[in-house]
Formats: sequence, C-alpha cells, structure tokens
Amino acid sequence: MAPLSVEEIVRRNKEYAANVHTPIITIPEMIATGTLESFQNFTLIVTCVDPRCVPERFLGLTPEDGVGVLRNACGHIPLALNDILALDHLIKLSNVIIIHHTDCGASHFKTVNIRKELKERLPNNTDIDSMTFGDFEDLEQSVLEDVKFLKNSPLVRKELTENVHGFTWDLKTGLLKSLDV
Amino acid sequence: MAPLSVEEIVRRNKEYAANVHTPIITIPEMIATGTLESFQNFTLIVTCVDPRCVPERFLGLTPEDGVGVLRNACGHIPLALNDILALDHLIKLSNVIIIHHTDCGASHFKTVNIRKELKERLPNNTDIDSMTFGDFEDLEQSVLEDVKFLKNSPLVRKELTENVHGFTWDLKTGLLKSLDV
Repeated sequence: MAPLSVEEIVRRNKEYAANVHTPIITIPEMIATGTLESFQNFTLIVTCVDPRCVPERFLGLTPEDGVGVLRNACGHIPLALNDILALDHLIKLSNVIIIHHTDCGASHFKTVNIRKELKERLPNNTDIDSMTFGDFEDLEQSVLEDVKFLKNSPLVRKELTENVHGFTWDLKTGLLKSLDV
Repeated sequence: MAPLSVEEIVRRNKEYAANVHTPIITIPEMIATGTLESFQNFTLIVTCVDPRCVPERFLGLTPEDGVGVLRNACGHIPLALNDILALDHLIKLSNVIIIHHTDCGASHFKTVNIRKELKERLPNNTDIDSMTFGDFEDLEQSVLEDVKFLKNSPLVRKELTENVHGFTWDLKTGLLKSLDV
C-alpha cells in the first residue's frame, strides 16, 4: 500500500468541504450566544497514534459527542500532562480515559535502539543519551502506571484525578478491558 | 450536553466489537506473512485534540489508508518530536502533515493564566514558573514555526525533513489552506 499523498489528502478535504461540512461554531460565538456550556467539561480520550487504533471508530464517537482525543506514541500521560492541564484550565475536563492497545509499536521499539540510530546521525550530541521514547513491555502495567501518574500528580485538579480511567484495547476482539480497581 | 460517560463509552465499544469489528493483523503476524510493508512508511497527521477537529472526518480517512494521527493541544511539534523520532525509527514515516485550526483553544488560553491557576493549587512549586502550554496568537505563524522546527531538527532523518507540510484548517469553510512555500 502506498502512503497517502499530500495531494490525495487535499483532494479528499475539498470533497469533504464541498459535500459534507457545515460551518462549526467558534468559542467567541458560543460565548456570545450563551452556549459555551455545550463545549465545556468534555471527556478526554488519551490513546495511540497507530493507524489501527482509531478511537472514533472503536468507541463509536460522533461529532455531537464533543469528546476530545489526544493521541501520542502509545497514549502515555507524562508527555500529555501539560496539555491536560491546559485543557482543564480552558474547559474543565470531566473524565480522562487512557487506552493503550495490544501490539502497540511502543512494545516493539526500544529506547536504546532509537538512541543508537540518533547517535549515528549526530555522534557528538549528548542530549540523546537521556532521551526517552515511552517503550514498554507489559501492556496492562503501562496503562496502570499512566493512570497512577495522572491520579498522583499534585498539579491536576483533585476532582479530575478522581475521574481517570484506564483500559486496554484488543486489536483481535475489538473490546476494551477496564483496569479500574 | 452532558459529557460522554465511561459507561456509555464501554457500551458503544461492546456494540462496535459485536457488530463492526474484524480482527486486526499484528506486527509479528505481518512479519510472519511478509506483509509488514503495508504498515510501513505511513503518513503522519499532527493536529489538535479539539472535539471539533477530527482529521478522520475532514480528511476523509479510512482504516485502509493506514494514516497515523498524533493529536495534542494545538498540534504542536516540539512536544511531539520524540514520538516522531520513535515512529520514524519503527516504520519510517513518509510525510508529516501539520494542521492547526481556526479558533484553536491554544489561541484562547494564556500560559501566564494557567501558571497562575497551578500556583494557587501548589503555591510552593517553582517548576510551574517555567512550564509552557503552547498558546499562540497568530494561526499561520504557529503552523510555520512548527514546520520550521521539524525541518530544522538535526535529529530528524534528512529525507523526512523534506516531506513536512503545513496547513491551517478552517472550522467555517471546512477547507485546508496550504502554507507550503
């Protein structure tokens, strides 16, 4: 399969804009019309970049649900913390739902090998030696550590720390598994 | 609108798994069957967490396209750099497409106000004074800075730096605007 080209992405966007899109309300317009509430307190899903792991699809999300989706390699929280704090400042999050999936790329790559590749590119750069890339070995442990990280962060609003949930998602069955205790 | 509850998310996932899902091939299975190539060299979209900004929707992406999607507050590159390096190590990215959108939350919040809120929570924490949250004033400038950051990073594979593209996306028209020069 050839990677999707920039030209094809632009073509599809034009098709979407012409046939599907309806203008979306802005935050100042929500404020002016007293409807900002509809944008606030959204649920934030934190999951993986992987093309196989599309939360809109496996959670059946629609644009009307107003769910925020943060995706990084694996769905790790430490990298996402500042963004979570900024979002919570802006709109007060109601829940953070952390979902890591089976066969995640981060369980296949190793920080030590990435550092080695980068060192070949930049032999004299010593910052590389302390760079980390979120690789993990145990899937459930990975979710539990990230749940714990967010719940225990003193920077996070207390009420939000009580609304952090962890799941794994299985590529084979398509099912979530709750790791909440 | 009430925020989507965890129970409702689990219910929808069960419905999806029962009626829509088909088992997805794993990386070891791709290696065993000589089909890993179909997963490699994918295009990576970097865009915003915002519920209004769903790239699968406005770019008409399908699961078969195999496009990776990284989403953080705004769609900023500095926070995403390590993930981009890890993904490129694992599968060699073909393109990185950076899309920031009009009326982004990061153009409404201010780092100084978030720090103030956090300081009220943790008055003695001095790390807060240097925390940054990616707020910006000029949308096109924000994209151009992130494109430049990635293109100029000596850590990034040279061929990939030549395949970085920047766009804005307009909530009103639904259209992308290319900022490539």
